[in-house]
Amino acid sequence: MSILIRQVQHEEQTVDVFINGNLIETIGDCAGKTADIVIDGSDKAILPTFHNAHHHAAMAYMRSYADDIELFSWLSDHIWPLETTITEEDVYNGARLACLEMIKSGTTFFNDMYWYFHGTARAVEEMGMRAALGAVFIDMGDGDRRAANRKMAQVLLDESRQYSNRIHFQLGPHALYTVSQEALVWCSEFANEHGLMIHTHLSETEKEVADCLALHGMRPPAYLDSLGLLSPNLTAAHCVWLNQSEMDLLAARGVKALHCPSSNMKLASGKFRFTDAQAAGIQIAIGTDGAASNNNLDMSEEIKMAALLEKHFTGDPTALPADTAWRAGTRAAAQMFGLNSGIIAEGALADCMLVDLNNARLVPGHNLIADMVYSADSSCVDTVICDGKILMQNRYVEGEEEIIAKAREYKKKFKR
Amino acid sequence: MSILIRQVQHEEQTVDVFINGNLIETIGDCAGKTADIVIDGSDKAILPTFHNAHHHAAMAYMRSYADDIELFSWLSDHIWPLETTITEEDVYNGARLACLEMIKSGTTFFNDMYWYFHGTARAVEEMGMRAALGAVFIDMGDGDRRAANRKMAQVLLDESRQYSNRIHFQLGPHALYTVSQEALVWCSEFANEHGLMIHTHLSETEKEVADCLALHGMRPPAYLDSLGLLSPNLTAAHCVWLNQSEMDLLAARGVKALHCPSSNMKLASGKFRFTDAQAAGIQIAIGTDGAASNNNLDMSEEIKMAALLEKHFTGDPTALPADTAWRAGTRAAAQMFGLNSGIIAEGALADCMLVDLNNARLVPGHNLIADMVYSADSSCVDTVICDGKILMQNRYVEGEEEIIAKAREYKKKFKR
Repeated sequence: MSILIRQVQHEEQTVDVFINGNLIETIGDCAGKTADIVIDGSDKAILPTFHNAHHHAAMAYMRSYADDIELFSWLSDHIWPLETTITEEDVYNGARLACLEMIKSGTTFFNDMYWYFHGTARAVEEMGMRAALGAVFIDMGDGDRRAANRKMAQVLLDESRQYSNRIHFQLGPHALYTVSQEALVWCSEFANEHGLMIHTHLSETEKEVADCLALHGMRPPAYLDSLGLLSPNLTAAHCVWLNQSEMDLLAARGVKALHCPSSNMKLASGKFRFTDAQAAGIQIAIGTDGAASNNNLDMSEEIKMAALLEKHFTGDPTALPADTAWRAGTRAAAQMFGLNSGIIAEGALADCMLVDLNNARLVPGHNLIADMVYSADSSCVDTVICDGKILMQNRYVEGEEEIIAKAREYKKKFKR
Repeated sequence: MSILIRQVQHEEQTVDVFINGNLIETIGDCAGKTADIVIDGSDKAILPTFHNAHHHAAMAYMRSYADDIELFSWLSDHIWPLETTITEEDVYNGARLACLEMIKSGTTFFNDMYWYFHGTARAVEEMGMRAALGAVFIDMGDGDRRAANRKMAQVLLDESRQYSNRIHFQLGPHALYTVSQEALVWCSEFANEHGLMIHTHLSETEKEVADCLALHGMRPPAYLDSLGLLSPNLTAAHCVWLNQSEMDLLAARGVKALHCPSSNMKLASGKFRFTDAQAAGIQIAIGTDGAASNNNLDMSEEIKMAALLEKHFTGDPTALPADTAWRAGTRAAAQMFGLNSGIIAEGALADCMLVDLNNARLVPGHNLIADMVYSADSSCVDTVICDGKILMQNRYVEGEEEIIAKAREYKKKFKR
C-alpha cells in the first residue's frame, strides 16, 4: 500500500509526501511516483501525530460519571465499585470509544494501563492505532492475588504475540500502595528477563509520599529504587511530589516521567515541576490520563494545559514554550518506546496527521506550532494516518456510528 | 421567522422547542405548530450558548504572533507596535474571523474592548451575534488624546444607534495605568449620564498594583473607588491581585469581575481567586481575553481551564464544580448586560446551540453539563442560533471561506 500526499505544507514549504508501506519514503518532489491512494494536501499541513503518554483507555465509559469529588472518595465510592462490574467486552467497547476519540483528535499511540488486556488489544488492533498495553498488577498484599497476577502476566506475554507489532506488551504494576514489595520485585525481574517496559504511577499525591515514608521508611523513589524498579524501562506517571534529589535520582536511572496536567489539576493532586525535571535531565512526555479524571483524551488540549500551568506555576511566561510542549506531546513518548514516530522525516513511521489550515483556529497562521499548542482543537484535524493506513479522512472514521451506539449503552448499564 | 426544533434533549427530557421571532416561545409539546424552518433535534441536546465576558475580538489577526514572552516585552515590543499599523478594515476582518471562531464553538455574545468601534460593530452585525462594544480610552496623561477620546465617545454614542439592538454601546477605559484620572472621572460621569456600562482591566498584574500604590498612594480598587468608577455598571477584567477587603469592596459596589484563566496563566499574571470572590458576593463571568494571549476564543476550553485552575490553586477537587463553571460561561455575562439569554426557558432570547450527542466526547453521556465543561470541544457544537436566526448549521457558517481567505492575508501584512 502506498499513499501520495500532494502539495502539503511541511515546515513552511509546500512538498509532496510519499508513504510506502508503513514508512514515510520521500518528502519533496514526488513527480512520476504513483500511489494506491492520492490525497490532495492543499491548504493542509502535515504534522506528526500525538502520542499520549499515560492513559487508561477503557475508562472512556466512565467519562463524567463522578466529578468534583475528593480523590479518595472518588476512587473508593465511585470508580473502584464501578470497576468491579466490568467485563472484557466492556473494556473492548470502552477502549474503542477511546480510540475513536483519540483518532479524531490526532493521536495514534497511547501508553495504557488497564484490566482485560485482550479487550483493549482487540480495540487497538481494529482501530489501527499503536499502544503499549500490559498486564496490570494490584495484589494489595494478598498472596493469592499476587500469584494470579504473576500467572496472568506470563500467559499474556505469550498471548500478546498474536497481535501485530503495533501492540507493545508491558507490565503495569499500578502503584506502590496497591502492589506489594514482592510483586514489585517480581515485575522488575520479569521485565528484565523479557525486555519489557514497566508502567506505573509514582508520587501522584502527598498522601502517597507520607504513607510510603510511614510504611517503608523511605519516600517513593527511594523505595522503588531499593527494589530495583528505577531503570530506563520504567515509565512513571504523575511524579508530582518529587524533590530535587529525587529528580536527580530519576534522571540518573533513566526513568521516564509522564506528565498529566489536567488530571493532576482536576483531582487537586499537586503540580509536576516540568522545568525543574527537565533541567535535572529527566525525559518527559505528556498524557491525558483516563477519561474519568480529565474528562477527554485530547492531546492538543493537554499540551496547552501543560504549557499554561507551568507558566502560571513558575510565574514565568517564557517557561515551557510551544516547541517544548509540542515535542512532549508528540516525539517524546515515541522515543520512550523506541518508536521512530512523532516526527515527519524520511524513513520514519508513517504516523501523521493533516491539519486544515482553513480552520479559523489556525488563521491567520503566523506560527503553526504555536497555533497547534495554544489554539487548535480536534476540529483542526482532518486526516490521520497510522502505520501507513488512513484511520480518518475528512474527519470521518469508518464504523464510528456503531462504536458510539455501543458506548451509549453504558449510560444505562452504569446508571447511578 | 419561526423555527421548530423537534425531539431535542433538554434537561434529560425529549421536547420540541418553538422559536418565534427572537424568543423561545414553547418548550414541550409543539404538536400542530408550523414553522418556517424545522430542525431535527434527535441525538442532539439544546443548551444556552456561551457568553464570552472579556474579549478583544479584532486581535484574532494576532493569534500566535508573539508567544512565550515576558508580559511587558510582549506588549511593548510586539503587540503595541503591530497595533499602530492597523486600519478599521483590519479590525473589521479580524473581528469577522473572531466571530466565525466564536460561532463555531457555540458563543453568541462577547464583551469587547478595541479600537475602531465601527470595524467590530459591522462584523458583529453581519455575523448575527450580540456584543458589548465601545469607545476605548487610552490617553496616557496626554490632554490632546484625552480630548480626542472624549469627542470620539460622544460621536460613537450617536453613531451606534445605526446598529441593531444586538450591539450594546459602552465605554472602554483600558486600565488605570493608561487612562488619566481626569479621563476616568469623565468616563464615569458620561456613563452615568447616558446609562452606559464601563469595561476596564483591573488589578491584572502585581506591577499594576505596585505602580498604582506608588503614584496614587492607593491600590487599584481604592483608587477607582475614589474616582467614582466602582459601581454596578463596571465590568472589570482579570481582578487577579485583590485582597479580601478589595473583594468585599467590589461586592458592595456591585462591580462585576471577568475571569480570564488562560490569559492569566499564559502571561503568568497571577490567579483570580474565584471561590473567595464568589464567597464575597461578587458576580463573576468567564472570558477568553483576546487571541493574542490565549490563543483561541473557545469558551468550552475556558470554563474547563477555570475549573481545573481553581481546584489546583485551592487544593480542593470540589472547588468550582461543573455547574458553577457552566453558569459562569453562559448565563453570568448575559445577566451583567441585562440580557435574558444564557438560559433555555420560555420567554428567553432564542440564543441557543444544539450539541451532537453522538460526538465521542459526549459519550456515554452520564452527565451533559460535566461533559460540556470537562470534555467537549468545538466539534460537539452542531447548530448555533442567535436572536432567533441560525448562524451555523451542520457546523457550516455561511460565507466562512471568504472570511478565512481575507484573514489569511494578515500573515503577509504583519510578517515579522
